[in-house]
Amino acid sequence: MRAAILIIGNEILSGRTQDVNIKFIAERLALRGIPLAEVRIVRDEEKAVIDAVRSLSESCDYVFSTGGIGPTHDDITADCMAKAFNTKLEINAEAKSRLVNYYVTKNRELNEGGLRMARIPIGAALIDNPVSGAPGFRIKNVFVMAGVPNIMQGMFLGIEPTLAQGKPLLSNTITGAVRESEIAIEMEGIQKQHPDVEIGSYPAMGGTAPSVSLVLRSVDEKKLEAATQKIVKMVKNFDADAVVTYQRPPG
Amino acid sequence: MRAAILIIGNEILSGRTQDVNIKFIAERLALRGIPLAEVRIVRDEEKAVIDAVRSLSESCDYVFSTGGIGPTHDDITADCMAKAFNTKLEINAEAKSRLVNYYVTKNRELNEGGLRMARIPIGAALIDNPVSGAPGFRIKNVFVMAGVPNIMQGMFLGIEPTLAQGKPLLSNTITGAVRESEIAIEMEGIQKQHPDVEIGSYPAMGGTAPSVSLVLRSVDEKKLEAATQKIVKMVKNFDADAVVTYQRPPG
Repeated sequence: MRAAILIIGNEILSGRTQDVNIKFIAERLALRGIPLAEVRIVRDEEKAVIDAVRSLSESCDYVFSTGGIGPTHDDITADCMAKAFNTKLEINAEAKSRLVNYYVTKNRELNEGGLRMARIPIGAALIDNPVSGAPGFRIKNVFVMAGVPNIMQGMFLGIEPTLAQGKPLLSNTITGAVRESEIAIEMEGIQKQHPDVEIGSYPAMGGTAPSVSLVLRSVDEKKLEAATQKIVKMVKNFDADAVVTYQRPPG
Repeated sequence: MRAAILIIGNEILSGRTQDVNIKFIAERLALRGIPLAEVRIVRDEEKAVIDAVRSLSESCDYVFSTGGIGPTHDDITADCMAKAFNTKLEINAEAKSRLVNYYVTKNRELNEGGLRMARIPIGAALIDNPVSGAPGFRIKNVFVMAGVPNIMQGMFLGIEPTLAQGKPLLSNTITGAVRESEIAIEMEGIQKQHPDVEIGSYPAMGGTAPSVSLVLRSVDEKKLEAATQKIVKMVKNFDADAVVTYQRPPG
């Protein structure tokens, strides 16, 4: 299985906004056992969005897009998704009804601007928006969600149970006072002996003492343990107080 | 001009690490007047890195990569860059000398692990690392930098004066207590009248009152002002206390 994220938004590419959606989706996918293969961030431009979604939809099992489904002129995601998959937008009756119902609770009426958010590609399935009414949608293997983080999160948690359940990625982290260059060669040997365990090495910079976190990831608990023991032994040769953190998926 | 960022790192795609490099580079490029067209985040896998760098190098004037140039087995960026551009790695004498000199200041010797960081594609130019010695490099139109944020920032600020100087993007922001759906239609009309000004609409969620920030961006100050006046008037019809922020590039 392979998943991709497509972030649509000039506000990320201009540096105005710090993206936080990638990390949220990445963490949830790791827990679900769905490997995240790639992320792309593109501008609010038709060709850029269409090219990216077609490419990712073809190369991945799931694509999660965020951004560009609001009521304003720069919200072009629904249009692009329809064009990317050779269909058209229509006012979706169920989406309109949800918007009207949400607006009633706020003592407001659905106007022409708000109604734009009921424009959904023909054939797409709606994604619930537990925060502000306006739904996302699924078209083919692409889940089209809002860019505002709390809305995106609400939408994602709703679709999560519909996704395939992979083998959750298990991980252990060993953090010790050692330099990467001191362990690089030995660690490479351990990595070669344990090809089903991915070993990542992340130095912490800025402190007074050297520190590195070695993250071991695998879907196989026994293989993970075997590699972890060797890495722990290696690090403790340099730092007897190295800390091992076992991170398990929930449940 | 078009620039792209290529983030190389499983730690971002696993959700372990919150990326902060995109925002830093994006802001600096905006100030330099170099539009950031696209960002890709790929895994530490040879094919993924090579495919992405070739694609971005061809479609963009500049590519800025971060991550994967340390001494450990998962640092495969230099190898991938050499392969992507049909050259080979060699121990770069200048890079080795810089590493030795840096290590001397730390009372350490350059070992086999550390020496890996002197492996640079033949023909590449070095990028200074003012933080920890080990250089990045430029190959063709690709600037290959570290992933650790403070090192990446030091490297980027060093190469920045060598980049072309575009027209800096100017921006004004109008923030008011109004709903996007209330202004969507009128704002679309203003956008159509001002095609050289990009108008982005970003709702703030979670507060008790509705709030939206409208960001106008242009390289042309007069056109920016003309569009800003119309947007300010539109927003003040809803919220007389709307706030206008003029953001200008430095200098």
